[in-house]
Amino acid sequence: MSAPDLEEPAMLIGHGFDIHRLVEGKELVIGGVNIPYELGADAHSDGDVIYHSVVDAILGALGLPDIGQLFPDNDPDWSGADSSIFMEEAYRRMDERGFRVGNVDVTLILQKPKVMDIKPLMRDNIVRLLRTSLGRVNVKARTHEKVDSVGEGRAMACHVVVLLEKVP
Amino acid sequence: MSAPDLEEPAMLIGHGFDIHRLVEGKELVIGGVNIPYELGADAHSDGDVIYHSVVDAILGALGLPDIGQLFPDNDPDWSGADSSIFMEEAYRRMDERGFRVGNVDVTLILQKPKVMDIKPLMRDNIVRLLRTSLGRVNVKARTHEKVDSVGEGRAMACHVVVLLEKVP
Amino acid sequence: MSAPDLEEPAMLIGHGFDIHRLVEGKELVIGGVNIPYELGADAHSDGDVIYHSVVDAILGALGLPDIGQLFPDNDPDWSGADSSIFMEEAYRRMDERGFRVGNVDVTLILQKPKVMDIKPLMRDNIVRLLRTSLGRVNVKARTHEKVDSVGEGRAMACHVVVLLEKVP
Repeated sequence: MSAPDLEEPAMLIGHGFDIHRLVEGKELVIGGVNIPYELGADAHSDGDVIYHSVVDAILGALGLPDIGQLFPDNDPDWSGADSSIFMEEAYRRMDERGFRVGNVDVTLILQKPKVMDIKPLMRDNIVRLLRTSLGRVNVKARTHEKVDSVGEGRAMACHVVVLLEKVP
Repeated sequence: MSAPDLEEPAMLIGHGFDIHRLVEGKELVIGGVNIPYELGADAHSDGDVIYHSVVDAILGALGLPDIGQLFPDNDPDWSGADSSIFMEEAYRRMDERGFRVGNVDVTLILQKPKVMDIKPLMRDNIVRLLRTSLGRVNVKARTHEKVDSVGEGRAMACHVVVLLEKVP
Repeated sequence: MSAPDLEEPAMLIGHGFDIHRLVEGKELVIGGVNIPYELGADAHSDGDVIYHSVVDAILGALGLPDIGQLFPDNDPDWSGADSSIFMEEAYRRMDERGFRVGNVDVTLILQKPKVMDIKPLMRDNIVRLLRTSLGRVNVKARTHEKVDSVGEGRAMACHVVVLLEKVP
């Protein structure tokens, strides 16, 4: 009863979610920006919650294997990796399939430190890596109101939604 | 390598998330409805998780500064503010940019009290404030199955997705 | 000031979220797949977090009552129910309204067990129940990094976004 002969949609939606614990002795990299802070992401790669969520949203929209499958966290290749590599690969696969970013909306959830002043840098990084324009990318940030692991400053999380459009 | 000359998309996606702690001595206002309950939102404004999430989703789609930047919680102007003010401002900016609501889907997450009977009121409020029609707005609600801060009744949260369309 | 005479959009967005506690003595069913594991969903029906989130996303997009209203958890009819019944009903209502799946992107959040090998089965089930094609459905999975109820293996959660399109 499936309909395997449906044409490819002109627009695709994707959702990405990521969470990482914050621990001592690690760097904090979010949206490609190194942020001076006493804690950093406990992760195999650089633990960039924004990049990881964006990548998963794009892969999700395209029906491709997710970030955990493409870049396994037991693969020494990705140990300490700069997550812009994953963004480049997501862009490459999107482009190969003939799609581009319609727009992407990022919701970073982080109790500390304050990131308001560096949101424009994060946004610029995403724009550049996805070869899109400023009006098509947004980065919002908020706290988790002091509750649960994120609110208690023990973790940071991110939700991303993306709309992809067929390149005309 | 960015593409700054891309035209504006005809459709934009946005995501909004909000969470507030529930405490004694505060009113509970959700989706513009005053709900009789022993706890209310610990917030600078009236702490309306639905309105805040809807506003952030719209601002997110439009690439505008988020609700925390437009209405800082250390600004005495917004102390105890009726969040419909934020909804009006989000509408104004969306309209100014030539967009309107395609549709908006709200997922309220709240352990107690039950809100099933007042969801239609919340929906009507959103329809009215965003100058859209009933078929373009939905409000869903569910519990957090008794786990974590929301499930234990110490907080309430909300996710919103929105699709905006260029006014023809 | 509402605009009740707006035509129906050609595309609709929806978001679904579900969470269930994991307890002993219950079966674990996710995306329609029975998974051998020591814990299962504490739920009135079979507690399928993927199916429930997909159903709520579709109902949300269509502006229909949510899964908790259509299939109340105090209704003996749904005790232990196979959640594919809810998927069939969501499909029926979508079809009746003249819409079909543009695409659906699932983010399952689960600490244990590993589900990578069975994601294709879950995807096939969704494709079949929604009468759509493989390229229009994706299932991603990730952990909650050992924090909070999901990370501690006491619960599992799921976010779904969906884009529906008017059948041409």
